[in-house]
Amino acid sequence: MVQIWVGVSVESARYKLGRFFLCRLEHNSAFVQSIINFVKKKRVKMAVFAVVGAVKQAKLACYDQVKHEYQQIKLYKPLEIASCFGNLSLKAGEPFVHIHAVLADEKGKTYAGHMINATVFAAELHLQELIGKKLEREYDQPTGLALWELGDDRINPLRR
Amino acid sequence: MVQIWVGVSVESARYKLGRFFLCRLEHNSAFVQSIINFVKKKRVKMAVFAVVGAVKQAKLACYDQVKHEYQQIKLYKPLEIASCFGNLSLKAGEPFVHIHAVLADEKGKTYAGHMINATVFAAELHLQELIGKKLEREYDQPTGLALWELGDDRINPLRR
Amino acid sequence: MVQIWVGVSVESARYKLGRFFLCRLEHNSAFVQSIINFVKKKRVKMAVFAVVGAVKQAKLACYDQVKHEYQQIKLYKPLEIASCFGNLSLKAGEPFVHIHAVLADEKGKTYAGHMINATVFAAELHLQELIGKKLEREYDQPTGLALWELGDDRINPLRR
Repeated sequence: MVQIWVGVSVESARYKLGRFFLCRLEHNSAFVQSIINFVKKKRVKMAVFAVVGAVKQAKLACYDQVKHEYQQIKLYKPLEIASCFGNLSLKAGEPFVHIHAVLADEKGKTYAGHMINATVFAAELHLQELIGKKLEREYDQPTGLALWELGDDRINPLRR
Repeated sequence: MVQIWVGVSVESARYKLGRFFLCRLEHNSAFVQSIINFVKKKRVKMAVFAVVGAVKQAKLACYDQVKHEYQQIKLYKPLEIASCFGNLSLKAGEPFVHIHAVLADEKGKTYAGHMINATVFAAELHLQELIGKKLEREYDQPTGLALWELGDDRINPLRR
Repeated sequence: MVQIWVGVSVESARYKLGRFFLCRLEHNSAFVQSIINFVKKKRVKMAVFAVVGAVKQAKLACYDQVKHEYQQIKLYKPLEIASCFGNLSLKAGEPFVHIHAVLADEKGKTYAGHMINATVFAAELHLQELIGKKLEREYDQPTGLALWELGDDRINPLRR
């Protein structure tokens, strides 16, 4: 195993629980865009969510940790959404969802990773709105990803 | 990729958070029936939940999106419940759980899909009760599934 | 299928929702120890949580239900955290996290099981604190595992 750091602190922000929604994504709709449309309509700024259902096809991705780019995994077949959850925050001022999923075919074989998009067959969304500090994703040099800028929690006015 | 709809609205209903339970499912009990028994005893009508644990055997399924029928996947061996979550609503007036799971064997190989049933080895259930509109599942023509009838959210009295 | 019990009761305890945290685990930090450090610092005693992100390497395990010991699965490569959730309770008076995960490689191939440890590439933690009865894990003879002692819920002062 490579060397790891154990003494580092975890950056965090504290939230109040806002509205909780159960939603039904439309048959044949675009998975990610439907979630974005929903949170925009309801003016949800921050959230955590999960999805149970099935898709007609999907595009997943795995992030190449050396090249700092996503490798796409295209799946042109019907799949169960065996697990799917993520969060909503902001990127460049716009709602941005970060979703990972495990999909399964008719033999129970699984495909998993970062969810880029999918076509909904049937999907039930459980979404918990979070009220508090607006989280913006910013470019992070070591990973090449857009990560949360949580800052030092000594200055987080919401902490206990 | 097939044509997809991006402009459709997402049907939703808003809930208040009710009781939160941590539960231990009994060794050798029937996975799905135990959850049903629990929610009936506690008079929980709507909920979202997750399970961490292991099963002695399991029956999963993948929905055939063309034939509109479930294909069973029988797994007669010990498996970790690597991911498992779902929701509780009503079907024909009775409590109905919709559960998807990812199971893993001793090599870390995974099997996933719609959870039909399993025999519990050890399982910890996290269950969040939801208070609000009773959700009934109704037959949905395009998918052949029993889906939530959420209706137009303009008439949802719980929305903000 | 082996014989299963359907009449047994489910042990449970009821909790109030405490603080909700969104956290960013540090690049190169030890996954499990970072979560433990965080809950100790914030004095969280009980919680449920999920993680979205990626790891540089990971050690999973599958519990051998006959031998009553964990079989390790060592994964020395970058992996997406496709699904990861668990709970925090106490074991011998110390914070103890029980975490299961589904990890995915660059082809979308999955590895899943009980999370022993991992090296964080980037990870977002969603953590819901639970307020109520302190849950202690105790040795359970039939499984050989440390499970929750929830007791008869007739004596649980938090039930409705």
